[in-house]
Amino acid sequence: MHFGPFPRQLLSGLWLALWFSLPSLAESADGKKKSPPTVAEILDQSTPQNWRTLDPENTLYMELARGRVIIELAPDFAPAHVRNVKALVREGYFDGLAIVRAQDNYVVQWADPNVEKPALARPIKTASKTLPPEFDRTFDKRLPFTRLADGDVYAREVGFAEGFPVARDRRKGKMWLIHTYGMVGAGRANAPDSGGGPEMYAVIGQAPRHLDRNVTLFGRVIMGMEFLSALPRGTGTMGFYEREEQRVPIKSMRVAADVPPEERTPLEVMRTDTRTFQAFVEARRNRQEEWFATRAGRIDISNIPIPSRSTGRP
Amino acid sequence: MHFGPFPRQLLSGLWLALWFSLPSLAESADGKKKSPPTVAEILDQSTPQNWRTLDPENTLYMELARGRVIIELAPDFAPAHVRNVKALVREGYFDGLAIVRAQDNYVVQWADPNVEKPALARPIKTASKTLPPEFDRTFDKRLPFTRLADGDVYAREVGFAEGFPVARDRRKGKMWLIHTYGMVGAGRANAPDSGGGPEMYAVIGQAPRHLDRNVTLFGRVIMGMEFLSALPRGTGTMGFYEREEQRVPIKSMRVAADVPPEERTPLEVMRTDTRTFQAFVEARRNRQEEWFATRAGRIDISNIPIPSRSTGRP
Repeated sequence: MHFGPFPRQLLSGLWLALWFSLPSLAESADGKKKSPPTVAEILDQSTPQNWRTLDPENTLYMELARGRVIIELAPDFAPAHVRNVKALVREGYFDGLAIVRAQDNYVVQWADPNVEKPALARPIKTASKTLPPEFDRTFDKRLPFTRLADGDVYAREVGFAEGFPVARDRRKGKMWLIHTYGMVGAGRANAPDSGGGPEMYAVIGQAPRHLDRNVTLFGRVIMGMEFLSALPRGTGTMGFYEREEQRVPIKSMRVAADVPPEERTPLEVMRTDTRTFQAFVEARRNRQEEWFATRAGRIDISNIPIPSRSTGRP
Repeated sequence: MHFGPFPRQLLSGLWLALWFSLPSLAESADGKKKSPPTVAEILDQSTPQNWRTLDPENTLYMELARGRVIIELAPDFAPAHVRNVKALVREGYFDGLAIVRAQDNYVVQWADPNVEKPALARPIKTASKTLPPEFDRTFDKRLPFTRLADGDVYAREVGFAEGFPVARDRRKGKMWLIHTYGMVGAGRANAPDSGGGPEMYAVIGQAPRHLDRNVTLFGRVIMGMEFLSALPRGTGTMGFYEREEQRVPIKSMRVAADVPPEERTPLEVMRTDTRTFQAFVEARRNRQEEWFATRAGRIDISNIPIPSRSTGRP
């Protein structure tokens, strides 16, 4: 197909997945060495145990006119921010607010457009306006960690823990979430403790790793990134929308647990602590698809989108 | 400013730059150690010699309803592709064709939507339909190369040459352009020699470095990325638009030299072979802006957008 210059990328959409067990990587029936599986084969052959559903209590739905953005929260990395963000969502703080900024190859950000006008700003009722930063957390070797083999420009060690991209530094005794595509954090002013959740951003471009340990990350967009990443870019400084009508209204934000079950999005995410996920990473390091003339043999953590899939209605 | 959680990013728009010389990094008049300059200071204090204009003979204008996309060609890295792309453009091949694909966090691609229907496909008159690949070129140490200090996950050595992101491997005697944001290449089918220019793509997301040495890169978008990166994503496989009306028409593509001088975009790009550019890289490795609580001390080549600026009308 002349229109297919790239191998099938991982699509976050609907699959009619077939449930086979992971094939032997050794030899096929006729005794020939088999190639390692492709990404598509790994996905097709994954078992139900390789996938997990999201905890509704740690999942946010942001409803835009374009569609639903689904964010998984990371309570083991930013417990205070996750608590506060849920409190903000549950008091309806974001309902009717807007995406106020879309900076190309960087971030979109949502907040109260009137936050700097005390008379007009929306009051925060039960949640906190600001929190001490949670830029990193204590290193815990008991937390399952799928380490990447090829290193990282920014950190001593990177990999995945609990479905999130994570850096670790044993010497400093720290681990922290890192800025890759779709990660969600708490915008702040100059003081490190000036964030807390009322302003949020999501990464829509090249992983801005210089923000690591400068902002508290507390979640990741699992589905609906295209409703954020394809927004018109703001023409003001740092991509802020200059006119009110350019802003993108947020219909509502909800904790999934507060949404009637029949209105929730049935969704599974690939576990990152399995042999299948390791095979998936390897299949992206060394692409087996016929199209490739050169196999990289290396992979950056920012180039490993964790598979997710709609599980459809029963 | 509570709305400014991030430092001023480099904007590719208009600056009213002031022409100072680069300040001493050593000591100020009062004898105190001065901080290294910020990105904004380096830009403000750069001299005219730190900037270059684009060669109109190696610059393409792609005109969309949204605006003009400006692409700089790289004849020293892909001479045959640059020649062929210019021949295609000069025979009007792309005029009235369309962007046919927008895959989130990956690429947009433009081509003849009818390329697979011989009866409807646009004929190529003077140019070549396909070319042998130019995935890499011979290592040439005489080509000025600003090497990055922090390594790279994918290649032995990366840096900038002639305004392009480049990887080098002395042992293999090769150097090649690499896939970072805005890089433009020649789509191909499975055979390495099935590309050549009639299908082009631009990177709109996380640097897809696994494509390095798999596709011939021949240019980079210097201005107008937001007209590509914010396009609605295609819902077909690999982000292809499923309906004809979703495609984004290309009004025309022109070599800038063929456009009347008064209709060209006055534009300068920062040279990558200067001390000022090295200072710019350092200012992005270790952000001096007050906002930063943690300085990365490291930088990935994909996080160094080369400054460009409109020089306005006389």
